[in-house]
Amino acid sequence: MSSRYTVAELEEFTSAIFRSVGVKAEHSAIVATRLVEADLRGRTGHGLIRVGPYVQRIEAGGVNLDPDIQIIHETPVSAHFDGDNGMGQVVMTMAAEVAIAKAQALGMAWVGTVHSNHAGAAGIYPAMAAKRGLIAMYFAVANANGMPPWGGIEPILGTNPISIAIPAGDGIPFQLDIATTVASHGTIKVVAQAGEQMPIGWVADADGNPITDPARAHEGFLLPIGGYKGAGLNIAIGLLAGAMNGAAFGRAVVDHRKHLEVPTNTGQAMLVMRSDLMMPAEEALASIDAHLEQLRNSRTTSGARVRLPGDGAHAAEVENLRIGIPLPEQLRHSLNELAGRLGVVAQLD
Amino acid sequence: MSSRYTVAELEEFTSAIFRSVGVKAEHSAIVATRLVEADLRGRTGHGLIRVGPYVQRIEAGGVNLDPDIQIIHETPVSAHFDGDNGMGQVVMTMAAEVAIAKAQALGMAWVGTVHSNHAGAAGIYPAMAAKRGLIAMYFAVANANGMPPWGGIEPILGTNPISIAIPAGDGIPFQLDIATTVASHGTIKVVAQAGEQMPIGWVADADGNPITDPARAHEGFLLPIGGYKGAGLNIAIGLLAGAMNGAAFGRAVVDHRKHLEVPTNTGQAMLVMRSDLMMPAEEALASIDAHLEQLRNSRTTSGARVRLPGDGAHAAEVENLRIGIPLPEQLRHSLNELAGRLGVVAQLD
Repeated sequence: MSSRYTVAELEEFTSAIFRSVGVKAEHSAIVATRLVEADLRGRTGHGLIRVGPYVQRIEAGGVNLDPDIQIIHETPVSAHFDGDNGMGQVVMTMAAEVAIAKAQALGMAWVGTVHSNHAGAAGIYPAMAAKRGLIAMYFAVANANGMPPWGGIEPILGTNPISIAIPAGDGIPFQLDIATTVASHGTIKVVAQAGEQMPIGWVADADGNPITDPARAHEGFLLPIGGYKGAGLNIAIGLLAGAMNGAAFGRAVVDHRKHLEVPTNTGQAMLVMRSDLMMPAEEALASIDAHLEQLRNSRTTSGARVRLPGDGAHAAEVENLRIGIPLPEQLRHSLNELAGRLGVVAQLD
Repeated sequence: MSSRYTVAELEEFTSAIFRSVGVKAEHSAIVATRLVEADLRGRTGHGLIRVGPYVQRIEAGGVNLDPDIQIIHETPVSAHFDGDNGMGQVVMTMAAEVAIAKAQALGMAWVGTVHSNHAGAAGIYPAMAAKRGLIAMYFAVANANGMPPWGGIEPILGTNPISIAIPAGDGIPFQLDIATTVASHGTIKVVAQAGEQMPIGWVADADGNPITDPARAHEGFLLPIGGYKGAGLNIAIGLLAGAMNGAAFGRAVVDHRKHLEVPTNTGQAMLVMRSDLMMPAEEALASIDAHLEQLRNSRTTSGARVRLPGDGAHAAEVENLRIGIPLPEQLRHSLNELAGRLGVVAQLD
């Protein structure tokens, strides 16, 4: 069972909750927008389900409520943002806006963050660029470790995600948003709650034996996609989003759900490019759209169209804008309870 | 059994072979350098073993021996190269040099190619940048298809590789060079020649059943790393290296080993960035080196150091520069035979 809400309803409610725990009005609005975007696109694991844990961190003093977010180094094609331990969505939104503006001006740009925080679904930042006809890649150091480097047994790597958005003119944009591990803590929790076993390939112990009981997941390690290949991509992301920016990567990563009061020093990075670097934008975007359509219309066993990365998010967005964003009853209930406890008058009916 | 040769010996021999079939002296030298680099770094599947197939294509008229390789569109941060069906190593080397120069000047650059050809090991182009202290990513559309999009059964995707190089100051650079499929046609051939079975997860039939007999590999499809995740990365690479540049991607890809006389219209793309975009280069590179060392020295079952992407290539390069590059007897023999047939006086003793 779930009820549906408009974007404005959920933004207003969410923003009110963050304001009530001391987040500036302007920042509360940005965090709300980014979280609702995730639910809008069907990325429910990074939507309003995160409001509770974020509030916990704020109440524990783990987030700076009055951060001096600033560019500490800048070139015409780049900017290094110090988030001053502010809300991750705020830091990354400011960084993405600067990357977009710089790319629009000069063709391409790279931004990196230090002292940022968990910024939600990886896909929402490249999506900001794609909506303006730009190509973007986003890299983040995950906010908890659980995987060793390939060949090792010390879990000092996280699910480090990469997201790539490539617009397609009037067509549905290509939008990839993936962890470089096969499973994440979130997907394992879903399996556990359903009382199911994990497939082989998600988690293994130090000797490489698969663990399939989600209750025993903590005894093992997350596995990378494609063995050493995904483990390598994972490290590349950590270097680009973490080490390059002076942000945490490796042993320095703080588990943001365990150590609520410790600043996470999260790092993110984002590349933005104009789509007309090779040929007029219209031509480039038409070429991309035609190639995506060829893939969607390629042969399948069932005769159904192939679903490409981003098609699901796009379909969810179209539907949810029309009939409202669904919130599961349990989440609605816990959000209303949280609002009540915080003295927020608004409720999700 | 194998003999060892200096870089100069192999470059001279290889260059002579290409000159003998009509490749310009300057272009022959570049192709030779890039191929020998692959063997030097232990990437033997993309080294001198390719001389024979390249000569076959040239003799079949599939390559333009007098190409007008030129930049057809340019901005301060980008260049679109038309390779005019010249040798892939020549086109990509010119493109990489321009990307490096532009990144050195402005901070970052993106180059793309159209009408290029197979350019060898993906890792050698980012390595050119990393040797000059720059960060680089390389994307290529593979020269044969063998994988359907996720959920489909029409094999219109190739092994589309990505390579990332991140320098580490005085330390060993991070260098990733991976196909986005679990196995490639080359790795399957190695298994077949050894009389072994393929592991589950390399190839599957249209119903998803694993194929483990390498002799039956052609009845199935290559599998992406991490299921839909690697399939998505594969498409992103195809869009960035192919569709964006007007190069072949999807059904338009020409199998370069089957249709020797048909121009491949191969596409590649490369991003180059200065390492001082966020902080002084010395600091950034020291941070990267420290993080890589932490990963290498993290716990293992055996107590041995963790081997990171690029460590193997680096070790091979150091050893091969010292004692010579090994060539298997069979390869040496076939190269000498080829030289003899082409009237090249030089031989590999």
